Amino acid sequence: MLTIHNIVIIGSGNVASHLAWAFKNAGLLVSGIYSRHFENAQQLAAKIGVKAFRTLQDIPLDADAYLYAVKDIALPEVLRNSPDFKGILMHTSGTVGLDVFEDRFKRAAVFYPLQTFTKDKAVDFSAIPLLIESKNKKDLKLIEDLGKKLSANIQITNSEQRKQIHLAAVFASNFSNYMYYIAQELLQEKGLDFNLLKPLIHETVDKINTLSPAESQTGPAKRKDFDTLNKQLEMLKENPAYQNIYHLISEQIQKLNSK
Amino acid sequence: MLTIHNIVIIGSGNVASHLAWAFKNAGLLVSGIYSRHFENAQQLAAKIGVKAFRTLQDIPLDADAYLYAVKDIALPEVLRNSPDFKGILMHTSGTVGLDVFEDRFKRAAVFYPLQTFTKDKAVDFSAIPLLIESKNKKDLKLIEDLGKKLSANIQITNSEQRKQIHLAAVFASNFSNYMYYIAQELLQEKGLDFNLLKPLIHETVDKINTLSPAESQTGPAKRKDFDTLNKQLEMLKENPAYQNIYHLISEQIQKLNSK
Repeated sequence: MLTIHNIVIIGSGNVASHLAWAFKNAGLLVSGIYSRHFENAQQLAAKIGVKAFRTLQDIPLDADAYLYAVKDIALPEVLRNSPDFKGILMHTSGTVGLDVFEDRFKRAAVFYPLQTFTKDKAVDFSAIPLLIESKNKKDLKLIEDLGKKLSANIQITNSEQRKQIHLAAVFASNFSNYMYYIAQELLQEKGLDFNLLKPLIHETVDKINTLSPAESQTGPAKRKDFDTLNKQLEMLKENPAYQNIYHLISEQIQKLNSK
Repeated sequence: MLTIHNIVIIGSGNVASHLAWAFKNAGLLVSGIYSRHFENAQQLAAKIGVKAFRTLQDIPLDADAYLYAVKDIALPEVLRNSPDFKGILMHTSGTVGLDVFEDRFKRAAVFYPLQTFTKDKAVDFSAIPLLIESKNKKDLKLIEDLGKKLSANIQITNSEQRKQIHLAAVFASNFSNYMYYIAQELLQEKGLDFNLLKPLIHETVDKINTLSPAESQTGPAKRKDFDTLNKQLEMLKENPAYQNIYHLISEQIQKLNSK
């Protein structure tokens, strides 16, 4: 095989859906979709206009690649139940090593898109970093070429690096989003509109294009404005969890100051 | 006075600088700049092309408005040392009430731009919410007109509302920025590049335009992927502060799930 032409998608969640679309839009052939829940496979397959497989045994053995976009926890079992596919097996997890693939899978690889995927929200793949890794070098070249059809940002990373990047991503994306959630809750409590904060949130993110996060840091903790810090802790007394988060993060930001 | 024509700026920090520029660009007359540190006043005044005042007593009594953009903690003292200005006195703090103004200042007000200001980074004022409040109604109209010269988003809020908005802003902006800081530190530890995360960060923020933060939430805590949560906590064992933050926020995100 000189290039990956056709891909079977295993999984039907957000990552599976977004990648299935991305492959199709890039002119690749999605050969079909398998999911533990056949109805989910059927639903996604119908959207993409491909076939749904009822069992792993129904999947042809000679596809060029098999994309395992399933929950981390489900991966070992789905692999155990998979026949000896001849093509390249790729999982899409940030946290699972290459070692999840049993030895019988000689052509094992990772194809991890570093992005947050939400149902029904299209994303532009062209700038998404695709973190790839492979058991053998020849396949790595094929996967790199496949990735280039989707994105200009292909990164060859080993499992340790990918795990660290995923951990950093949890802070940068999941946890920053949860900070927006708390902000919205605090506003709602007083009948205030979350839209008020959107220009501020956009500016905060805009800064990272030109400044480091340390240079961008502002606020009462950065200024060591203890009067405001104490007043705001007091305002959060009805919500001990938010108060703890406020305390812990503010304490860290203060240390930033003296570096 | 039918409209505010000229403004004295008291303070020379980020908020003072950005507002001085914004007023000047909007065609208003900045009459001069005062700062406790005369050199700072001189520096900013030279940039804007206006005069610097050496003492509060040098400031003319008959300016239309006086913008107090000083640290919250410094505000009471600067006000105490101020002569009986005839124009409108406005402070720019999110957390300080209208009650900081002594009774002798009948024309007291608040002009709070809900934004994060960083040195040397220009911001577009047109979308910034300006939260205004005034001791008397007539002045409120003048301040509203002044605000409209800078921004299309003027919000009349009382001190309690403004304090809550400021608290929410600390989470949405300062704390989300600190999450970027942690992410960068985690990458640097392993020689990895923070630029990798920028598409992810931008997409995370982009989502808030169409989805609520609760709908946007993704990640191991949202999926209740305890295996990943435990592995990532273990990865953070060298840094107890980051580990605590990870634990606390993940715990809260899990609760979100069951709402």
